[in-house]
Amino acid sequence: MKNREFLKSNWMAIKDTDREKGIEKPDVERDCGNLIALPSFNMGRKPFYQVVKERLSIRKYSKEPLTLEELSFLLWATQGVRKYIEKKKVIFRTVPSAGSTHPFDTYLIVFNIDKVEKGIYRYSGLNHGLCEIKKDSFETDVIEATLGQRFVGESAVVFVWVAVPYRTEWKYKEESYKTIAIDAGHVCQNLYLAATAIDCGTCAVAAYDQDKMDKLVGVDGEDEFVIYLAPVGKI
Amino acid sequence: MKNREFLKSNWMAIKDTDREKGIEKPDVERDCGNLIALPSFNMGRKPFYQVVKERLSIRKYSKEPLTLEELSFLLWATQGVRKYIEKKKVIFRTVPSAGSTHPFDTYLIVFNIDKVEKGIYRYSGLNHGLCEIKKDSFETDVIEATLGQRFVGESAVVFVWVAVPYRTEWKYKEESYKTIAIDAGHVCQNLYLAATAIDCGTCAVAAYDQDKMDKLVGVDGEDEFVIYLAPVGKI
Repeated sequence: MKNREFLKSNWMAIKDTDREKGIEKPDVERDCGNLIALPSFNMGRKPFYQVVKERLSIRKYSKEPLTLEELSFLLWATQGVRKYIEKKKVIFRTVPSAGSTHPFDTYLIVFNIDKVEKGIYRYSGLNHGLCEIKKDSFETDVIEATLGQRFVGESAVVFVWVAVPYRTEWKYKEESYKTIAIDAGHVCQNLYLAATAIDCGTCAVAAYDQDKMDKLVGVDGEDEFVIYLAPVGKI
Repeated sequence: MKNREFLKSNWMAIKDTDREKGIEKPDVERDCGNLIALPSFNMGRKPFYQVVKERLSIRKYSKEPLTLEELSFLLWATQGVRKYIEKKKVIFRTVPSAGSTHPFDTYLIVFNIDKVEKGIYRYSGLNHGLCEIKKDSFETDVIEATLGQRFVGESAVVFVWVAVPYRTEWKYKEESYKTIAIDAGHVCQNLYLAATAIDCGTCAVAAYDQDKMDKLVGVDGEDEFVIYLAPVGKI
């Protein structure tokens, strides 16, 4: 099939990138409006071996809410900032990314988190906080946008990763798409393991209606669009 | 850029898959020739939180060899088999994969592992063992095939993930390529963390010469081809 080519390496063909042309590097994150600070946490001490052994794709969650500390831990493990060099707009997160380009914004659809109203939020790693997008109940919308996968709407929170491809295109042009998809896997694997480490469950979802998901979280579907998502809940 | 479309979801368009046509499911692994059994291990007990906190991309390794137990642990963490239903050819590994299709074979380029001769091997998760491909010293070849990245040839072992796309295409057709790339990220993230858990280092490599890497590990470049790789060594 022709699209197999997409998965191959064509690295030597990268030429005339925006970086080489001296075009300014894009920002590492969008600015935040109303920020909810996330608390520090003390958890996730389960031995690594045990976490890998226990990890499963889990589609059934209890009605118990996640605490804000648990959410804080999961966000740190998936997109937390280790280091930020402001002058050069270089960011290092808890996960690796091709050329440290980190092409994602994490949106949350919150259903059942202690001390957080239902609604849609965006994570700011630079501030380790949540940026409010809109408050409402989106259970039905997210089930519809994931083609009827009920368990997504029955979780405590849905992690929705939005790709901002220009962050990587600026450096790697057409070679960006393979690495952006791989990077989404790096992030999601940390969510699987971090959830397992605190006795929560998740199951990644690649099958969704692109337009509906983009509209739900409020991105334009061109320069920013949903690439992958994963509901989390207690088990 | 036009290839952004590749990262979007077009799940509703999947029609007339080979699975739906009743075509037999492909095998989960290739058959093995001469098998080297991998030992059991007792390691990786570092707390999960600490592993995530310590993880870095590491390009400098010591000359100390990896033990066979350590290699066994890293292979288990990345592609170990949790469960195999032979009749249905359904496999579950330590990492998640879209529709449990698990489209990878793991090849190893061994430079410095106790009790293993230098050469190229393929991992069999079903047997938790190494299948011998060819014995020789491939340091110079792998540096050339990774466009001069010397650290790749100065590691103890290089994990080379080969995509076998039909395993996923059988079920998802053109939607396979995004999920195969994401799945490669799941696998590699477990390698990053498992290496960190036993005080080894790794740094994933997406920049390589496709033909040279395919020839080096001995795959045809059409139905099986290298998608991602990562050298590992002690730090």
